[in-house]
Amino acid sequence: MPRYKLTIEYDGTPFVGWQRQADALSVQEALEIAIEAFSGETVRTQTAGRTDAGVHARGQVAHFDLDREWDPFRVSEALNYHLKPHPIVIVHCEMAGEDFEARFSAKARHYRYLILNRRARPALDVDKVWHVAVPLDEKAMHEAAQTILGRHDFTTFRSAQCQANSPLRTLDRLDVKREGDLVTIEASARAFLHHQVRSMTGSLKLVGEGRWPVTGLRAALDAKDRSRCGAMAPSSGLYLMAIDY
Amino acid sequence: MPRYKLTIEYDGTPFVGWQRQADALSVQEALEIAIEAFSGETVRTQTAGRTDAGVHARGQVAHFDLDREWDPFRVSEALNYHLKPHPIVIVHCEMAGEDFEARFSAKARHYRYLILNRRARPALDVDKVWHVAVPLDEKAMHEAAQTILGRHDFTTFRSAQCQANSPLRTLDRLDVKREGDLVTIEASARAFLHHQVRSMTGSLKLVGEGRWPVTGLRAALDAKDRSRCGAMAPSSGLYLMAIDY
Repeated sequence: MPRYKLTIEYDGTPFVGWQRQADALSVQEALEIAIEAFSGETVRTQTAGRTDAGVHARGQVAHFDLDREWDPFRVSEALNYHLKPHPIVIVHCEMAGEDFEARFSAKARHYRYLILNRRARPALDVDKVWHVAVPLDEKAMHEAAQTILGRHDFTTFRSAQCQANSPLRTLDRLDVKREGDLVTIEASARAFLHHQVRSMTGSLKLVGEGRWPVTGLRAALDAKDRSRCGAMAPSSGLYLMAIDY
Repeated sequence: MPRYKLTIEYDGTPFVGWQRQADALSVQEALEIAIEAFSGETVRTQTAGRTDAGVHARGQVAHFDLDREWDPFRVSEALNYHLKPHPIVIVHCEMAGEDFEARFSAKARHYRYLILNRRARPALDVDKVWHVAVPLDEKAMHEAAQTILGRHDFTTFRSAQCQANSPLRTLDRLDVKREGDLVTIEASARAFLHHQVRSMTGSLKLVGEGRWPVTGLRAALDAKDRSRCGAMAPSSGLYLMAIDY
């Protein structure tokens, strides 16, 4: 059966998240309805990252199988036509081997978190950033971030609902930089726990405010205690940027 | 009379532009209503750049006078409270000298134009970019842009409705660069003619598509003929970034 690999951009604001839910529209449901509309086939898609409600994607990846083999460019054109009512677009479609799994073949996941750090609320970036009015020291945040790179038990930065078997993850990148009022956090790992990026971001904010010392982030990690995590950052500032295979 | 200088960010999408119009809401009108709401004084604001409908601003500057002297931080807080229904925020407020004029004291105006250059429409940047599906050669665009720097008669890139006395302007910067699918144009000058940035951008796009040679932009400029201008780029991609005084 031909397997199709999609690269997807979406504005997460109007959706309950990636995953299908009974009571409201998810990105997955909108996409699967579009696939059925053009192909006549009912499919289940599998994705690299099940983003939460309000989380955005510039490079989400999903795969699905169809009985019929289509030209991948025609698939993306047809899906974009049927997706028009929604802020979801297929940026790229290609054929994938039978052993390709969007979720399990992923070698690295790249997330970006945007903080608008100024007194005034956003006018241009509503629902696209976390607005933090207290001045943040991004250099202290970056320094703290470097202390939790590597393989650790990330229980502190893990949602109580996380379904992963193990809290062990290897964090490859956690960079914090500022350009004017915009503080950007880049996080990369083979895989993340549920709410891990937003939990780490919420704790980094406490370092940036000076409420935690630079050593506080590592101390929270070492405690392996969810109650030591800073208040979780909102979904609006988070973007799934790319998946490496 | 105390003079107040504002730095303003707005999403231009819902407005008829900066300038007051009888039939629909402008940024100027929303701002002047907010000023009256907090101060009780009816004022007219003067601005550095009268942006068109749909054009955005990250660093618009305006000034106005009040009988009463207020702390500038309290002015920005009060205005942001009254501006809440609109995508307009005061990023900064300060006192200015009596000789300060937002329009006439400006030494440089900086605009940015964003082109999303890929097949798929935007999902995340709706109304915030110009979507161009044809692949653009940004290096050719940049090369062409350098040929029209300096002091010239910009009649070709000037709206028929432009009210400036002279078509002579000095273009200090016109840089084109690409990051992934995003092509960014940075344009700086002491002053621009009406529709000048969007007109130059529309013509640069023809160079990027290969429909004009690199030398075509300068040839169009030299013709001093509006009919030689490429189709004007839409307002959605244009941002007034900053004004220097």
